[in-house]
Amino acid sequence: MILTVTLNTALDLTYRVPCLHPHASHRVSDVMERPGGKGLNVARVLAALGHPTVVTGFTGGVTGETVRRLLAESASENTGSLSEAFVPVLGSTRRTVAVVDGAGGGTTQLNEPGPDVTAEEWAAFTGTYARLLREAEAVALCGSLPPGVPVGAYAHLVRQARALGVPVLLDTSGEPLRRGIAARPDLVTPNIEELSALTGSTEPLRASLDARRRGAGAVATTLGPDGMLAATPEGTWRAAAPKPLTGNPTGAGDTAAAALLAGLLEGLPWPERLARAVALAAATVRAPAAGEFDRPTYEDLLPQVKVTEA
Amino acid sequence: MILTVTLNTALDLTYRVPCLHPHASHRVSDVMERPGGKGLNVARVLAALGHPTVVTGFTGGVTGETVRRLLAESASENTGSLSEAFVPVLGSTRRTVAVVDGAGGGTTQLNEPGPDVTAEEWAAFTGTYARLLREAEAVALCGSLPPGVPVGAYAHLVRQARALGVPVLLDTSGEPLRRGIAARPDLVTPNIEELSALTGSTEPLRASLDARRRGAGAVATTLGPDGMLAATPEGTWRAAAPKPLTGNPTGAGDTAAAALLAGLLEGLPWPERLARAVALAAATVRAPAAGEFDRPTYEDLLPQVKVTEA
Repeated sequence: MILTVTLNTALDLTYRVPCLHPHASHRVSDVMERPGGKGLNVARVLAALGHPTVVTGFTGGVTGETVRRLLAESASENTGSLSEAFVPVLGSTRRTVAVVDGAGGGTTQLNEPGPDVTAEEWAAFTGTYARLLREAEAVALCGSLPPGVPVGAYAHLVRQARALGVPVLLDTSGEPLRRGIAARPDLVTPNIEELSALTGSTEPLRASLDARRRGAGAVATTLGPDGMLAATPEGTWRAAAPKPLTGNPTGAGDTAAAALLAGLLEGLPWPERLARAVALAAATVRAPAAGEFDRPTYEDLLPQVKVTEA
Repeated sequence: MILTVTLNTALDLTYRVPCLHPHASHRVSDVMERPGGKGLNVARVLAALGHPTVVTGFTGGVTGETVRRLLAESASENTGSLSEAFVPVLGSTRRTVAVVDGAGGGTTQLNEPGPDVTAEEWAAFTGTYARLLREAEAVALCGSLPPGVPVGAYAHLVRQARALGVPVLLDTSGEPLRRGIAARPDLVTPNIEELSALTGSTEPLRASLDARRRGAGAVATTLGPDGMLAATPEGTWRAAAPKPLTGNPTGAGDTAAAALLAGLLEGLPWPERLARAVALAAATVRAPAAGEFDRPTYEDLLPQVKVTEA
């Protein structure tokens, strides 16, 4: 199985309003609730691609219960290839609120910080993680850290995986990324803002090479509508869809990460992994809900993605 | 006991952010959760003023359970003078999100619509309401209607109360107010926008007299920092605090409604009721959380409120 870790799971709420005006009152016309956090999105895509996947991380409080219930409901729809092994915490799983305005308009995001995780809860997690790693073909470490989890958490989890020879993908930002990358993950998947914040360079190729020098085996950077850039031990490539698609980009990065991890396990050459990642990310942008993908769009786009050496 | 009805109860979330930018992502620094809906705010103030109070309305889903749990916790702090008799629904109690920006800055409000209430659930409510009315000295009908509840709901509930000789306060807006007022409630407590929408007049005195002609026994309109205007069978008065107070005005109208209902039960003359309502509303504006009031501010302001015939 593939293991995905979401330390800061979330109950993602999507609110639709005609137009968001600061300091005014709004009647929300439509409310959607789904289990969230990058690792959960990655897991859903992996399961949809046919890879048995286990999600772990922390859940707590009534929002945590709701996340687990919604995930169980969606897993039973997904032919059972997604299961969970969350570690309970006393604090409450956070909510995130995405306020979508107008017809296909912009999204305003409000993210709660997450539960205060105690040292004992963090120790319980590392135990569960060690046990799950023994069954894992690969692991994805995803998203922000809740308060209380040490900032070097991902570095620790990367080292645990590497000690067992389990390939590890790291998808986070800021100081947790800076520290995690030094522990030599096989792959990091930042967006260009996260990569620039890490390296101080806004030039994607230069920044990617810098990130490899800092410890990442490969760096696959999402460039929004411009596709992806990958700096790997086998070479450096750019991949882009034939034309930028309009829609909701939330979760496109998570979908790309899932595609790259699946491609690694299937032993595909890097250009093929990138073509899949770009086509799947574009198909996510076209899906009605964040973090899902539109399969006909994916199948239509896959042969059209252009991969060139960078 | 005093009965307060909140058909569209809510879990009120308050998010603090440095500054709200539409279409950007925000990390919420501080999250507060409390049971919400106008009738719950009114009940909290009545209980704090020493009146045993029962709240009813609908609750459902995990947010409904959270509302009941938080209310039970706050009731035990309030010396037990607040209790609940909610009617369960299959749908989920709504959330409201208040995004507070900057230090003492503006508030952006996002209100979910509420659960779809079935005809059977509405019938169950009217049965519970009839039973509770037999013990009630007064009743406050407060706030918006959830989807599924007939738009003439408040008119029906006003008539049930009047048939038993129970004084009734109605605090709502739009079509539910228009229909409810025709059933002759003893008191309505709109703000100036709600009163203008009802009567088509933006001049407070003229609009108040019009609302009395439409059926309200008395009309007490909140004018924000300018205090209140009351048109009653005993006369017409304006009441204002010595100087406008800065702070969070959320819930000030609910506090004023509670003060007026308490004054009615205590048989106070209207000018005294208004002085209390204005002082309490001002003390709510100064309290740290919406819907609470600062007792020293109240006691300090009470003798300073100016009440004049209008």
